[in-house]
Amino acid sequence: MNGAESLIKTLVKNSVNVCFANPGTSEMHFVAALDSVPEMRGVLGLFEGVCTGAADAYYRMTGKPACTLMHCGPGMANGIANLHNAWRAKTGMVNIVGDHASFHLQYDAPLTTDIVSLAKPFSGWIRSSDSAKTISQDAAEAITVARGMPGQIATLILPADTAWTEASSNLVIAKEPELPGFDEATALEIAQLLKKGEPTLLLMSGQALLHEGLELASRIAKKTGAKLMSNRPSPRLQRGAGRPVLDSLAYPVADAVEQLKAFKTIILIGTEQPVSFFGYPNSPSRLATEDAQLIQLASAHENVLAALEFLAEELGAVSSGERYSLNLPDLPTGELNLDKVFQSVAALLPENAILVNEAITSFRGAALATARPHDVLQGTGGAIGHGLPESVGAAVACPDRKVVCLQADGSAMYTIQALWTMARERLDVVTVLFNNRAYRILQGEMTKVGATKRGQTADQLLNLDNPVLDFVSLANGMGVEASRALTADDFNKQLAGAIAKKGPHLIEIMV
Amino acid sequence: MNGAESLIKTLVKNSVNVCFANPGTSEMHFVAALDSVPEMRGVLGLFEGVCTGAADAYYRMTGKPACTLMHCGPGMANGIANLHNAWRAKTGMVNIVGDHASFHLQYDAPLTTDIVSLAKPFSGWIRSSDSAKTISQDAAEAITVARGMPGQIATLILPADTAWTEASSNLVIAKEPELPGFDEATALEIAQLLKKGEPTLLLMSGQALLHEGLELASRIAKKTGAKLMSNRPSPRLQRGAGRPVLDSLAYPVADAVEQLKAFKTIILIGTEQPVSFFGYPNSPSRLATEDAQLIQLASAHENVLAALEFLAEELGAVSSGERYSLNLPDLPTGELNLDKVFQSVAALLPENAILVNEAITSFRGAALATARPHDVLQGTGGAIGHGLPESVGAAVACPDRKVVCLQADGSAMYTIQALWTMARERLDVVTVLFNNRAYRILQGEMTKVGATKRGQTADQLLNLDNPVLDFVSLANGMGVEASRALTADDFNKQLAGAIAKKGPHLIEIMV
Repeated sequence: MNGAESLIKTLVKNSVNVCFANPGTSEMHFVAALDSVPEMRGVLGLFEGVCTGAADAYYRMTGKPACTLMHCGPGMANGIANLHNAWRAKTGMVNIVGDHASFHLQYDAPLTTDIVSLAKPFSGWIRSSDSAKTISQDAAEAITVARGMPGQIATLILPADTAWTEASSNLVIAKEPELPGFDEATALEIAQLLKKGEPTLLLMSGQALLHEGLELASRIAKKTGAKLMSNRPSPRLQRGAGRPVLDSLAYPVADAVEQLKAFKTIILIGTEQPVSFFGYPNSPSRLATEDAQLIQLASAHENVLAALEFLAEELGAVSSGERYSLNLPDLPTGELNLDKVFQSVAALLPENAILVNEAITSFRGAALATARPHDVLQGTGGAIGHGLPESVGAAVACPDRKVVCLQADGSAMYTIQALWTMARERLDVVTVLFNNRAYRILQGEMTKVGATKRGQTADQLLNLDNPVLDFVSLANGMGVEASRALTADDFNKQLAGAIAKKGPHLIEIMV
Repeated sequence: MNGAESLIKTLVKNSVNVCFANPGTSEMHFVAALDSVPEMRGVLGLFEGVCTGAADAYYRMTGKPACTLMHCGPGMANGIANLHNAWRAKTGMVNIVGDHASFHLQYDAPLTTDIVSLAKPFSGWIRSSDSAKTISQDAAEAITVARGMPGQIATLILPADTAWTEASSNLVIAKEPELPGFDEATALEIAQLLKKGEPTLLLMSGQALLHEGLELASRIAKKTGAKLMSNRPSPRLQRGAGRPVLDSLAYPVADAVEQLKAFKTIILIGTEQPVSFFGYPNSPSRLATEDAQLIQLASAHENVLAALEFLAEELGAVSSGERYSLNLPDLPTGELNLDKVFQSVAALLPENAILVNEAITSFRGAALATARPHDVLQGTGGAIGHGLPESVGAAVACPDRKVVCLQADGSAMYTIQALWTMARERLDVVTVLFNNRAYRILQGEMTKVGATKRGQTADQLLNLDNPVLDFVSLANGMGVEASRALTADDFNKQLAGAIAKKGPHLIEIMV
């Protein structure tokens, strides 16, 4: 077998069996080798940002790394925005980037690029695999890094001649990553703080927001009176009826400061101190009050689950915490507005759905806390254009679950090509497209930074109303069925219909 | 005035008066300041690759740098593919990247990125402008670099607080870049070689392919019997009736080797030795024969025009060289195929049109050499998705000239958002969209790299036929009028109609 086959077989042997790909010439042996390894599913994206966003969501939903396949420096560059989000989400991923044949690099042909410089900002591990003999070992090491606690992006650069040269048939099993620990002394100190019963917040991210982590935190809250809140970035939230009560740190600085001001103690679990998303004139970057005590139970690079178990045991926190109960709203009627859209989504969202949220200023999530239980994927690194690609990855990861993507118009346009992959793979995704015909968040930000004089030129850079984007045409152009809802009744009917059928559908609303 | 105003006023004072922008929060002061400087034209792109490709073409057509405006590391990353092309084209550009306020960087908020590491591979100059007091000086230095010979990308990182802090009203005039020289001794040696009359090729790029450069080369060819050929990358070609006869180096290795094998001497003018685009098994990277003598009159970093003038004078090359004469084909009829498309384009292309070529495997350019005189912009760095953005930039640069974009389907999808900017700005661009429903070039490359076993999985990664993209819907969705031509007569009529009207139109052909 050649290096490409050795690579793919090593990936599959180590349970990396989905490849989100946008290949070019230097990756042709990899593509050819896919035919000899049917266990590897190749999913084509028409733009690399679709592939990287999909691989990110795949990991968030399964805890397993997928791989990407991209073409040289410029191809990978197209995937960087969502690689940045994945890096902030602490997603594990094997990021495979084809490169020129090693003997060809000296000629500085037009596509030659410094891939390492481009990959550094988001990669926990980078290696150019310079021999077909070692490609299996290189891949195994990349997989170990990707699977670590926390997950990391391992960028494996694949020179074309490594792919086409004869390789060993010996496939390397990836070593299990080393489990990190946590500091017991700090955990004991935190237990003492919690026993005082002062206003305390457990501010959490990553593993602390999922499954046993969230359960343990909820029991600790019940036992001590502490409150639970998710910090940014939150790669995945488990929400809805039956799930522990959990606040989220607000985006607007004033709201976030208000949320945090009552707490004398903030315990950081799998996260760092709460900070504002942007710095503004005359506004704090640190969101906690000056005199609040911040103490970290475990960083994202420590064993968050073990630390939570230790703390719960130390506190004797065994009984279940406060949970949301099911409370579905009635279906709205009449004129459509944002509140009614979310009322309808809350009423119709099926059990176990995956809700991908890039609605940005259109988001009105309050009603969803008491909807049927679901997962929420959201932006983690602030790079926009993640919603549609994440929906692709979530649907590939969980084919038996409905994906509902709440997608703003401006951000949709960065990775609109994801719709084609939804059609190609017949992915079970309902996209609700909020067409407000503006970069609405920027209109707000403009005021916040004190840039108040907004004239015609500035307006033209923030409005999307000339011409108005027609997302029904865009979806149809990529093979996705689509409809436009002008009233609440339209929307209810179209959403119920889209949820009832299998496969992709887009509903555009002009709100 | 604040730092943002100081920056924009400095740009305008130094004749940088177009900004291709996709701003975010950290750029809001820049956007607000645009209103106070009406001389700066802001052109919005819905994706950063549109902005960078447009700025590249703007420079190629005017010789003047434009500026971009992008949002932090991930926003700039979306523009890197076309920045890579611009770097290879030796395009001058002031690449403005907003960043967090300087006091906010220490908090490692989600959007924080290593912008410098991302910018290094394509930037000739990088600076983070850390004070509103020096922003005018920083901008002036960036402009000097961008205007140099050759042009370079100057990346100016703009922290949000630099933009909003009070700045000096003193606006700095950019220094003229230093003119490089060339080596006269080598030029004299080349003159001697040319006087021998052996089979000699003048292989050229950059300035040597334009205006006086091309005229001088043509005279030298006439005097000495040498042939003229463009090497890769060729940022801009001047073609059609009345222009000097000029070959282009072929992309397929075997064809290129065949083109070069007769030449004992290859004189490199504004370019490096001819190399294959990719390395293949059992195929040379160096395209010239082993015994050919390669000698460089001037690199792209030397004064190519002065070297050509010196050489022409030394040779007494004063009489005009061989030129193409006008020879328009008849309009084709009947079933549509690629040859007929190009026959029709050759017949109808108006005088002084700008032809942007990303047709890739669909390109059949032979007939265009004797069409009316026109300019050709084409890919320079191998990063695809340049055609539609370059058309935006060319149309902004030259509002009185018709832009005809020959665009393949697969590559169109990387930067399809450019259509919206064409509609927004009412740009005079006719796009001919070649929908062959495949990554056709990769199907060919797969055979060339020796990966012959192409099964169903590999096929799925190279075919775009499931579902078929409908570019009429995609164009309409972004406000661009569009039509589909199924016969040659359809195509003639639609192309003539689109050329006759002002504003954007897309013609899809299923070939």
